[in-house]
Amino acid sequence: MQIAVVLYDRFTALDLVGPYEVLAGLPGAEVVTVAEKPGLVTDDAGTLAIHAAAGLDEVPRPDVVLVPGGVGSHYQMAEGKLHEWLRRADRTSTWTVSVCTGSLILAAAGLLTGRRATSHWLAKDQLALYGATPVDERVVLDGHYLTAAGVSAGIDMGLILAGKIAGEDAAQTRQLMMEYAPEPPFRAGSPGSAPERVVGPVLARREALLTGTEAG
Amino acid sequence: MQIAVVLYDRFTALDLVGPYEVLAGLPGAEVVTVAEKPGLVTDDAGTLAIHAAAGLDEVPRPDVVLVPGGVGSHYQMAEGKLHEWLRRADRTSTWTVSVCTGSLILAAAGLLTGRRATSHWLAKDQLALYGATPVDERVVLDGHYLTAAGVSAGIDMGLILAGKIAGEDAAQTRQLMMEYAPEPPFRAGSPGSAPERVVGPVLARREALLTGTEAG
Repeated sequence: MQIAVVLYDRFTALDLVGPYEVLAGLPGAEVVTVAEKPGLVTDDAGTLAIHAAAGLDEVPRPDVVLVPGGVGSHYQMAEGKLHEWLRRADRTSTWTVSVCTGSLILAAAGLLTGRRATSHWLAKDQLALYGATPVDERVVLDGHYLTAAGVSAGIDMGLILAGKIAGEDAAQTRQLMMEYAPEPPFRAGSPGSAPERVVGPVLARREALLTGTEAG
Repeated sequence: MQIAVVLYDRFTALDLVGPYEVLAGLPGAEVVTVAEKPGLVTDDAGTLAIHAAAGLDEVPRPDVVLVPGGVGSHYQMAEGKLHEWLRRADRTSTWTVSVCTGSLILAAAGLLTGRRATSHWLAKDQLALYGATPVDERVVLDGHYLTAAGVSAGIDMGLILAGKIAGEDAAQTRQLMMEYAPEPPFRAGSPGSAPERVVGPVLARREALLTGTEAG
């Protein structure tokens, strides 16, 4: 089972590595990191560079396509090589999945038209601009598409996907090995649960966050 | 605030990227990936390579030292350059922290003698071999050491550390931006909660997992 993990400049590292860690440990998984060109790709904090092992053209028919989000997703909304590759790969993929604003890229490529989907809470409404229906859930399944909410939601999505690919026992084995029994020290993981003094300033600089002039 | 993230062959990617994602977004954070030599370092699934921006010698006095775990930690238990660097850096660091079996490396380097600490549930008992006291908690604080349980526990540790470094509001802002309101799809994140049919086979191949002949 070939899993293509898409890299682009200024992706969010955890968007990618959360589901990667779940999926790479499944029996028979063969992960390949892909980008427009092979080589180092730097994340949106500017300090973590992951190696893209292959160019998009070298991986034409992956079984799973995984698209992370990130500040740089803003620069992947226009028609081009990535969109073309996504549409072609999606024709034969078993699963096409995204984390955070990765769903906006899928939607802009035309893959989520008429589909239910989710994204980072700050960006979710934009899905409608590309013909998808924003849904307020952490992980959304529609057809062979799985979209996850912001950043850390990719771990939950990865486990759901692992269950569908390899069965629930295999998925639970991954959860056990990753010791995923989360204990967030604060109650601040969503705009509804975080204190107003935390949400307020984030909303105030929403525009800068969304257009990539400031890292999330 | 300089944060040195240690890479070594066959680290676990999420051990590193979980806390990285929390900390790299803090105001004033300056993350640097370090390894014995600069260059690409591959994870324990064999399919994700992260670039070490600097050699250990180039980063002598980081404010925070972060050591991930992984199958490869088994090969970092002997005295050598990494241990020497850890002891030296720890003398001036504000925080020295680990995820998963990263705590075994800290302990083997002599840093956790007489300290309470935790590790991956499969490896925690080994802390006692190096003079530390294993504790059954997800994140353990003792002095300026924070140790986290397996893999995903690094996110919780990262948020606790963020609170201590930058204050609770800044930590909660990171949690909100990472949308960390986890919804694990299964109840299998610890040996106590996972079904016996999942835990049993893992315990049966425990030896292979611990000695690195099989990826976790």
